[in-house]
Amino acid sequence: MEDIIFGKNSVLEALISGREINKILISKNIHSDVKLNKIKELAKENGIIFQFVAKEKFIPYAEYNHQGIIAQVSPINYTDLDEFLEKPHNNESLIILDGIEDSHNLGAIIRTAVCAGVSGIIIPSRRSVQINSTVEKTSAGAINHIPVIKVNSLSNAVEKLKNSDWWIIATDASADDNYYDINYDGMNSAIIMGAEHAGVSKSLLKASDFIVKIPMLKDFNSLNVSNALAVIIFESVRQKLVKNKVK
Amino acid sequence: MEDIIFGKNSVLEALISGREINKILISKNIHSDVKLNKIKELAKENGIIFQFVAKEKFIPYAEYNHQGIIAQVSPINYTDLDEFLEKPHNNESLIILDGIEDSHNLGAIIRTAVCAGVSGIIIPSRRSVQINSTVEKTSAGAINHIPVIKVNSLSNAVEKLKNSDWWIIATDASADDNYYDINYDGMNSAIIMGAEHAGVSKSLLKASDFIVKIPMLKDFNSLNVSNALAVIIFESVRQKLVKNKVK
Repeated sequence: MEDIIFGKNSVLEALISGREINKILISKNIHSDVKLNKIKELAKENGIIFQFVAKEKFIPYAEYNHQGIIAQVSPINYTDLDEFLEKPHNNESLIILDGIEDSHNLGAIIRTAVCAGVSGIIIPSRRSVQINSTVEKTSAGAINHIPVIKVNSLSNAVEKLKNSDWWIIATDASADDNYYDINYDGMNSAIIMGAEHAGVSKSLLKASDFIVKIPMLKDFNSLNVSNALAVIIFESVRQKLVKNKVK
Repeated sequence: MEDIIFGKNSVLEALISGREINKILISKNIHSDVKLNKIKELAKENGIIFQFVAKEKFIPYAEYNHQGIIAQVSPINYTDLDEFLEKPHNNESLIILDGIEDSHNLGAIIRTAVCAGVSGIIIPSRRSVQINSTVEKTSAGAINHIPVIKVNSLSNAVEKLKNSDWWIIATDASADDNYYDINYDGMNSAIIMGAEHAGVSKSLLKASDFIVKIPMLKDFNSLNVSNALAVIIFESVRQKLVKNKVK
């Protein structure tokens, strides 16, 4: 599937037909008209980010008839959090990604999540890489086996989860508890992984039920985020299999 | 540090001065002479691979005066296995990489290995990515915190390890035992991770003391190799910390 839609007519049509759009970029140099206003109106209605950017942003697309507007289309359909929570959940896990910027990391996380039987991945609509063709490719097809839930506010999502019998586990290098001190079996757990450099944001740490670290045996605290997630999520798998004596 | 050395004189000088060379590429179209013979002789003596390749291989280096010969230089000094084994080892871990082809995977593995306090990484000199500048960069500096041991034969290396009080653990998707069934505490363990697609080679599986799998909760057996390693190596860390009540 195409990653980018070019020009007012095509972007407007994509919005009307309800295609999943990650972001709309509009050149600061184009004039407002009925179509552009309609685009902005529909984007707002559907919670789709649109940004006014310098015309230089369009240089990579010079060969296309973009008319100063492009839409970055998602290769997948995102899942709605409310719809996800309406279904029954029992002893499941979710992953919340707080500002992952690297497409390869997101792809690797999706692969690992699918292998570990994770029920869904939550990403924010801003300040995060979206599902693009690089993520799709790096996930080695795993993207088709797990719902990705896009939310406008991670804080609101965490509150909703807490009100729906989910326990929130955040990761932070300065935590007191180790990730294996948590008993993952018998509860729905949502694990928050932070951005590559900044970590989990303070407000989310505060909202979490548990904060855990991965103990490092060398003073070199730089585990890749997908590797860190793999360690934690497979500890929860281990606990569930060992306790339920599954081989 | 430079990644590539160009031309007969520079390659010869690098060999004489003992610089770490991953591989020497020689164009099939260049004529043999005293210098080239000396290069081949020194390469053989030092166990450095040299390959005769079509002149098209040199197109990317057209701007350099390569004279049909280049040497790919390692950004690090490799460690010798015998020297490594001469030192005392107690309750340590090693990672053996059987044919990893992707530089980013190798970099991520090195980061994870350092965080988990692994004592060294063994790679083969053939059919494997070597330590290059991409690996160095992806490792986020971790490459400077762990010895990388390059060997001509992984089978020989495994035999040497077994004769030196190391236990060999290979990973294979069809294993009966899970990775967490092993008791890692109290022994020196060397964990063999296989190539991205082919897995651990049959001869190494046969030579191993244990073969383990990571149980998958979804029928999607495609964990990225660095993530798979992270899961296993941090299970060994967990066991050691829990048993020794370190927090």
